[in-house]
Amino acid sequence: MKPVKVGLLGLGTVGTGVVRIVEGNQEDLSSQVGSPILIERIAVKNTEKPRDIEVDAAAITDDPWDVIRDPEIDVIVEVMGGIAGTKEYILEALERGKHIVTANKDLMALHGSEILAKAQEKQCDVFYEASVAGGIPIIRTLIEGFSSDKIVKIMGIVNGTTNYILSKMSQEGASYHDVLKEAQELGYAESDPTSDVEGLDAARKMAILGTLGFRTNVELSDVSVSGISGVSKEDIAFAKRLGYEMKLLGIAESHEDEFSISVQPTMIRTGHPIASVNGVYNAVYVYGQAVGETMFYGAGAGAMPTATSIVADLVAVIKNLKLGVNGLKQIVPYKQKKLKSDEDIFYKNFLLLHVDDKAGVLAKITQVFAEYDVSLDSVVQQANPSNPDAEIIIVTHNASKASMNKVMRHLEQLKVIHRIKSHYRVEG
Amino acid sequence: MKPVKVGLLGLGTVGTGVVRIVEGNQEDLSSQVGSPILIERIAVKNTEKPRDIEVDAAAITDDPWDVIRDPEIDVIVEVMGGIAGTKEYILEALERGKHIVTANKDLMALHGSEILAKAQEKQCDVFYEASVAGGIPIIRTLIEGFSSDKIVKIMGIVNGTTNYILSKMSQEGASYHDVLKEAQELGYAESDPTSDVEGLDAARKMAILGTLGFRTNVELSDVSVSGISGVSKEDIAFAKRLGYEMKLLGIAESHEDEFSISVQPTMIRTGHPIASVNGVYNAVYVYGQAVGETMFYGAGAGAMPTATSIVADLVAVIKNLKLGVNGLKQIVPYKQKKLKSDEDIFYKNFLLLHVDDKAGVLAKITQVFAEYDVSLDSVVQQANPSNPDAEIIIVTHNASKASMNKVMRHLEQLKVIHRIKSHYRVEG
Repeated sequence: MKPVKVGLLGLGTVGTGVVRIVEGNQEDLSSQVGSPILIERIAVKNTEKPRDIEVDAAAITDDPWDVIRDPEIDVIVEVMGGIAGTKEYILEALERGKHIVTANKDLMALHGSEILAKAQEKQCDVFYEASVAGGIPIIRTLIEGFSSDKIVKIMGIVNGTTNYILSKMSQEGASYHDVLKEAQELGYAESDPTSDVEGLDAARKMAILGTLGFRTNVELSDVSVSGISGVSKEDIAFAKRLGYEMKLLGIAESHEDEFSISVQPTMIRTGHPIASVNGVYNAVYVYGQAVGETMFYGAGAGAMPTATSIVADLVAVIKNLKLGVNGLKQIVPYKQKKLKSDEDIFYKNFLLLHVDDKAGVLAKITQVFAEYDVSLDSVVQQANPSNPDAEIIIVTHNASKASMNKVMRHLEQLKVIHRIKSHYRVEG
Repeated sequence: MKPVKVGLLGLGTVGTGVVRIVEGNQEDLSSQVGSPILIERIAVKNTEKPRDIEVDAAAITDDPWDVIRDPEIDVIVEVMGGIAGTKEYILEALERGKHIVTANKDLMALHGSEILAKAQEKQCDVFYEASVAGGIPIIRTLIEGFSSDKIVKIMGIVNGTTNYILSKMSQEGASYHDVLKEAQELGYAESDPTSDVEGLDAARKMAILGTLGFRTNVELSDVSVSGISGVSKEDIAFAKRLGYEMKLLGIAESHEDEFSISVQPTMIRTGHPIASVNGVYNAVYVYGQAVGETMFYGAGAGAMPTATSIVADLVAVIKNLKLGVNGLKQIVPYKQKKLKSDEDIFYKNFLLLHVDDKAGVLAKITQVFAEYDVSLDSVVQQANPSNPDAEIIIVTHNASKASMNKVMRHLEQLKVIHRIKSHYRVEG
């Protein structure tokens, strides 16, 4: 059988993983798709760099256009990353009728709709399972497994770096900065960790999951984002005492076709399936109207898990190629986008306040919550041996984001409050 | 657009769930498949029985052949259960070019290869996502999500009844018989619970998962099965003391294309993702050579979760229908079947022995393990206040099943052992 020829953009750790799987599992893969799979050309930054794997020198180029323009190549696997330039390569490859497999969450979150529109125009496949939660086939699950259901809620631990940091802080009582430094030394965090720790990476993945789950075009700017750099070990200790774990959760919710989507450090009830997901692992919890609670767990990053998803997409593209149906199963969001207003977004809140240690303070503070109709689940006032202030810990019942914003603005003006130390969303 | 016409065999709780989803989500579903979906005919046992849903009386028949022979119908959804008669209906429907969606694990485990061969001959789809683990899209995951990987191990909690019983026994220290009775009252267990509690239901599901994961034709007779009816509350207490939970686990393992597959009560290390799956929930843990650890969690039964998987399959069939590619993506196991011999199946073992309370007994017993080269992880001897015998608790290191069989036969003959009280597989 004539081999299917693949062009690879990028030969970093993930690209190397793709070559390893395609070569190592060649017999299995060709049994499934009905012909051999050949990695025909590979674009790299530096052709001289020593590699962990043997690749034919003639296959290597430092010009991605050599790969894009090669008429022999049917499928482009993009694992070089980047946004503007990479988008240009992918659009041109589609223009030439080549199918795309990509792990590029940044590109898909920012330009997914443009790329998918071009793919539809040219009847090409664009698959991107590896862009969210590495080895977990969550994109397939949302598109196919739950095609029949209305997705009510998606909660994701979709960033391994921050989950590693929060898990370590929780398990060892360590500080954010110490664990971040350790994560950087272990290669779990970048030297500039901003995109991970400030929640941007997670937000991009949640925009992709929201688009698929709610079948509407969720954009990155629809995601409200805050990161973990302000989470202290004291916050985590408070969470534990109340029966919660602290996780950076992406939360997407939909009700009557209106949705909200956010990423923030969240206190999640111990015992919830996602609360025990630790270390660099990822998990996506999906609540469907009919199916109820489900969760999908696995490695969110790493060369081989990510390459597993990429090569599974490659198998799907090649099967479609054999059947002549590429581009015909493209999922195009068909629902009009309706974002919830802050009045319609409800959740519980945790607050830690440092206040004057004198009579009447608690009454003044709880009065503010009452004024905006936010009811309280629990209130604890305690002395802090290392601080002349008293501490007040408040957990609210479900309250609208709009009401809580008003409460927070009002609290900021109360003279008896020295500091609003922490404010977190609470789930479960 | 001309509607796609569906025939439904069975209108019990799951069938009712299918009607509810197809009608309730009609707008969403028809947006995805490009035409309305109409449940044209429904075969029931008793046409007079009052129903929870409104169905057109003219659509109802008590003769499944009316549905099979209706030339208007493109897809048959089979949720009536049963084996011999149902197989006949399905084969005839395939003969007539109709596609099949079924939730029937018994049928697929026993006659799957015959049905799939007929489907291939007639270029028809046969989808059966709902047959294993209800709402969890594990069949799709094995076929598509992990098409690129070599599956090394599948561990499944795939029977909700037994998981409910073992979870309750663990949480409440209750006895097997008390919890079984309660489960029967709650409708979680059948009045004749044999198929669930003796592991047969789980074995059927594991045969299906093994076939897909290892791409070879696993038959029910390849699964070594034991159930939970002998598990005592003392066993569970011992498990907990040693840091394990007791679960009825299906375990399928493959190494160099040789596999083993079994269902048995297993002590699984607390902290393993599957150890905390409780109640009627199901979970399938999949370890792939490249992807590493993954787990898929959700409702394993129930009308709506099961119907979610069925209607997702229906959507997939109809998409294929529109593209004219039904039956062309059928997965046919392509690997020769090679079962591992007992010499090549390795696991840890837990044993609880009641023995003579005198000197030299422990030496005699450990000597037996040494004779067959089974090394021990831990040995504890203790008095039992409610018993004149002493108790010996042994946990082995990994040992071959063949060696352990020899050990067990030898132990049975030792006069100092009054009773081999328990013997379990240990994982994690």
